[in-house]
This record gives sequence, structure tokens and C-alpha cells, in this order.
Amino acid sequence: MIATGTRCDTSAFKGAGQPHVFTLHSLADAERLRTFLRDKQPRRAVVVGAAYIGLEAADALRRNGLSVTVLERSANVLLRDDARLTAAVRKVLEDHRVELRCGVTVSSIEPDRVADVPCDLVVVSCGLKPNVEIATEAGVTAGRTGAIATDDRMETNVRGIYAAGDCAEAMHLVTGRPAYIPLGTSANKAGRVAGANAAGGRERFPGIVGTSIVGVFHVGFAMTGLSVEQARAAGFSPVSARIEARSRAKYFDGKKTTVELVADRATGRLLGGTVVGEDGAAGRTNVIATALHARMKVEDFEQLDLAYAPPFSTVWDPVLIAAQQLIKEL
Amino acid sequence: MIATGTRCDTSAFKGAGQPHVFTLHSLADAERLRTFLRDKQPRRAVVVGAAYIGLEAADALRRNGLSVTVLERSANVLLRDDARLTAAVRKVLEDHRVELRCGVTVSSIEPDRVADVPCDLVVVSCGLKPNVEIATEAGVTAGRTGAIATDDRMETNVRGIYAAGDCAEAMHLVTGRPAYIPLGTSANKAGRVAGANAAGGRERFPGIVGTSIVGVFHVGFAMTGLSVEQARAAGFSPVSARIEARSRAKYFDGKKTTVELVADRATGRLLGGTVVGEDGAAGRTNVIATALHARMKVEDFEQLDLAYAPPFSTVWDPVLIAAQQLIKEL
Repeated sequence: MIATGTRCDTSAFKGAGQPHVFTLHSLADAERLRTFLRDKQPRRAVVVGAAYIGLEAADALRRNGLSVTVLERSANVLLRDDARLTAAVRKVLEDHRVELRCGVTVSSIEPDRVADVPCDLVVVSCGLKPNVEIATEAGVTAGRTGAIATDDRMETNVRGIYAAGDCAEAMHLVTGRPAYIPLGTSANKAGRVAGANAAGGRERFPGIVGTSIVGVFHVGFAMTGLSVEQARAAGFSPVSARIEARSRAKYFDGKKTTVELVADRATGRLLGGTVVGEDGAAGRTNVIATALHARMKVEDFEQLDLAYAPPFSTVWDPVLIAAQQLIKEL
Repeated sequence: MIATGTRCDTSAFKGAGQPHVFTLHSLADAERLRTFLRDKQPRRAVVVGAAYIGLEAADALRRNGLSVTVLERSANVLLRDDARLTAAVRKVLEDHRVELRCGVTVSSIEPDRVADVPCDLVVVSCGLKPNVEIATEAGVTAGRTGAIATDDRMETNVRGIYAAGDCAEAMHLVTGRPAYIPLGTSANKAGRVAGANAAGGRERFPGIVGTSIVGVFHVGFAMTGLSVEQARAAGFSPVSARIEARSRAKYFDGKKTTVELVADRATGRLLGGTVVGEDGAAGRTNVIATALHARMKVEDFEQLDLAYAPPFSTVWDPVLIAAQQLIKEL
């Protein structure tokens, strides 16, 4: 069984070895960063990469009093081609005076700056790559994503060799194609299946729908399935609706919640969604994720019998309000 | 269209007309109770009926400093034949020194006591009945539950007469039989369908899965589908598993969360669940409810790709831990 995880490949950066440059891969990395913060009292940080670790690092550094700039190579954050989600993250970062610059390619880290941003601390949180070398040497084939390809029993092309977790692909149940979305949840599930089968079992890991969440300054940014852009790239004809609602009754301190749902115009099938808010983003995203597993249509999703009482929700839960809006667009 | 709602039938109680006896059906009722609390300074309250309003009233009266005893005719609370849920509610009530007595039939309200419980304030929150008289006079038939029977277009047996909401039945998607579970969520959904069809539309209301939640002293008690007892009564061979877990990572102040799942031994189909806890009970119950709409099996439910980050969940969400346990029992 192969479960070799990922590495953060900093070799692309000149100057990655300097003492003020950090990755966050192990507990020792965090301890080293904490010691640097205490001993060197840096004031200006640059975070390279706006995925989960990058945004969490920006949050933590800002709370520690540093000025923070986040540089992201692609046009969007959180590894998701989703302009609206990026705008929502940018808004929360800016509310806390963290600057986000997308479309910035970093090739070298200077002692006192990255790109044109002066800094005395750099966190590199990009360049995630699956560790496939051991597998390749054993004759195991990687898929199109660059991670190890397996069947739904997590067995590779070499009989008796199984792969699971951050080094391996998983079937994306919305696109029907293998995807590389390395997260602890699916690694854990796939690892159990790989282990059981390596020990003679007959278990299946059906796949993932790409659900994830990250907290940035008390706001949850959660996503599942495909964005409009991802759906189009996967060959669907996406239609989307985005609504703002309260997470619960106003008199129970309901928080602003933004829900976007994406569906396929041809079939009415739900393809994905995002939920952004301080309260209940995970639970609402999980409802969408469950509907994706069930290949539910928006018209059926709209009729879901969800829990309501004023301290917990509104009569029409925000995800259902989004579904109503989406049905009008379809 | 008929949408006449419910009434709280207090006619069964002798002494229901006394000035210290209240129902909570309208805003005026609440104002009258508030005035009584201010002017008469009652110290001991009895709440008759341990459904949603009864438990919320007990909570509010206790927070206002009164001693509170809740009397419930049936063996269980919240209109659900579920001994474990009742035990969980009892525990939280007792933690706040509210006494719950089940199996107590109240036939008369004395000026200074109900049953053998001394009191100077009584809230009657039981005897909920659908208002079907107008419908019956029009030739509309009630179903076995006593509420108005409709088809999935919310049309009654009389062509052109539609019924929706607290006076009408709805199809229970787990049992496949009409049920009477009067709640604002399904009333709202069914009312829209009835209205659209009365105006010439062709909409369907597929039905409900019996999802609800109530907050009692900061703890959410949420349920969906069938309890073990209800599943048995509906002809299933129920198997259940109940687990305790944290709502999120311990270092992010994760709260104790109890999840019970019920499945059918013959088919492995998920039949229902309850979630009890201070944090995330609604969202987790909604995941179970969505799976019930999709007629999901436990083995598929266990593989759901749910959102994880330490401020929001554990790697295996509590509902998935419960599913793992249930698979062992099946």
C-alpha cells in the first residue's frame, strides 16, 4: 500500500532556503515559525499561495499583528476556478486589512521582498505535489492529474499495490472523472478501503464531490461540487443562482449567509454550491454535498424537508431560497 | 383553498378558563402571559404538554426565575415515540432544575395546582388539532390522521378544493403513508404548491420526512425520519446506533454531540436519525434528512464527502461516525 502524501515543492523559488522563509507541513515547521515570530519580531509578512494553508496562515499572522499580503499565481483562491468565491474571500481579507493579489507569479524570494512587496517573513503555501516517485519506481501509473490512478477498490495498475490519500486520485462523482483534491476526509475514507482490500477485503470507495471548508477571520468559506467555471470546463451547461439570507432568525442574531448553487441547464441536475458565512456554512454545504452524492435535481432539492426553529434557521433555509432562485433561472 | 391551521383544544380540561391558565397560539396570548408575569409575580409554573411550544415555554419561564414542572400525557416528548430522545431532553431539563413527568394525564386545572403539582401559572401546550370543520362541511374528507387528505397536488377529494398546512396531511417519504406533522416549513412548501395549482398550475409537493428541531437551554434537539419505535410500528425491522462525538476539534471548543441513526435491517436503508447538541445539530440533521429524501442506504451515507476543517467539524463528521457504528450493527 502506498500512502506517501504530498510535498510542498519550493524548489521553483530562488531563495527558498533563507531563514525567514517557511513552509507549514509539519509541527516542527510551525514551531520554527513561532520561534521566529518571537525572536525576530517581523512586521511584514508575505504569504505565497491562497489555498487553505495560505489563507489560514494569513489570518493567524494578521491576528499576531503583522501586516500581511497574500500572493496567488492563479486568478482565484482556494484551488477553485470561482470568481465569486474569490471576491468573497477578498472582501473578508480586506475587512481585516490583508491584501490579496491574484495573478502574481513568484519566481524568487529576496531577503527583503517578494515580487515588489517588502517583507521580513515569507510563508510559502503553494506548489503542492503528490509524492508519486516510490510508486512510479514500482511500475505504478499516475493519472492525468499527476497523482496515482486507482480503481474504486483503491488498487493501482499493479495488482496487489493499493494507493490512497494525498498521493492518489479519487473519482469525482459530479464529473465522473478522476480528480486530485487532496484532503484529510477523503484520504481517511480511501485509506480504510485500501487497507481493507490489501488485507483481502472487498470494499469500494465510490469517490468524492470536492467538499471543503476553511475559516478566515470567523467567516466560513465552504464549497462542494463544481463552480460555474468548473462545470463549463467539464462539459455541462451551467446555470447558477446566488442569494443572501440570514443564517437564523434576525432576533436570534442571524448572520449574513451567501449561498450559490450551480445546476446543469440540460438536465436540471445540481452540480455544486458554495456557502459563505459566520454561522452554519459547514452544515448547509453538507446538505448540498449529500444532494450531489444522490445526483439530485434542483427541483427535488428545493423540496427538502429541513429543520426549522428560529434559533437555528429561517423557515426557508438559505440553501432552499437559493434553489428557488435557481429554478427561476433554469 | 383551505388553510385553516390548528387550534389548541383546551376544552378537555376543567378550569381552562381561569386567568392563570394560558395557551400560546397568538401574539396576544404571549402579551397576556407577559403582563401576568409582571403583575402577579408567579413563582411556580406548570406546563401541560412537552412538545415544541411546551419545552420552549418551560425554558423561557425557568429563565424568568420560576420553578417549572412539565407534565406530558404520553411516555415521550416532542411528539416522537423515542425513549432515548426523551432521556436526552430530561437530562437537559434537570440540569436546569426543570422537572419532567411523563405519563401524566391532566383532566382538570385547579386554582392552585395541576395534578398534584402546586402552581400559580399554567401554560397549556397540548391538544393540537387540525381545523377540519369548514372542509368537512364542504364535503372534503379527512384522512386517518384526522387532518385533511390530499393528493400530491394538494387537491382534496373535492375537485377544485385544495388544502395545505396545519389542517392537512402530507406524504411521509420514509413510511410512504400520509402523516400529520404540522410545521411551518412543510406548510409553507405545500401552501405554495396548493396556491399554484388552484391558479391552474401543475406543481407537486412530494412530501416530508418529519424533520424538526427545538432549542432547550442552548441545546438543540433535532430529529428526522423515524425513531426505532416509529420504524417498527411502520413495519420495518429497525436497527440503530448511537454515538457521542465532538461537534468540532477539541481545541476549537468542540461540544458534545449525540447522533443516533436508524436503518432497516432488511434493506440497509436509512430510516431516520436524531442529533442532540449545542453546536451544529440543525446542519447535521439536515444531512440525514437529505439522505432520507434520496432513500440512501447507510453504506452510501457513510461515504458522504462532508466538509472538514478543525473550526467546523472533526475529520469524520459525527453523522459519519454514527453510520460506521450502524454498519457494524447491520
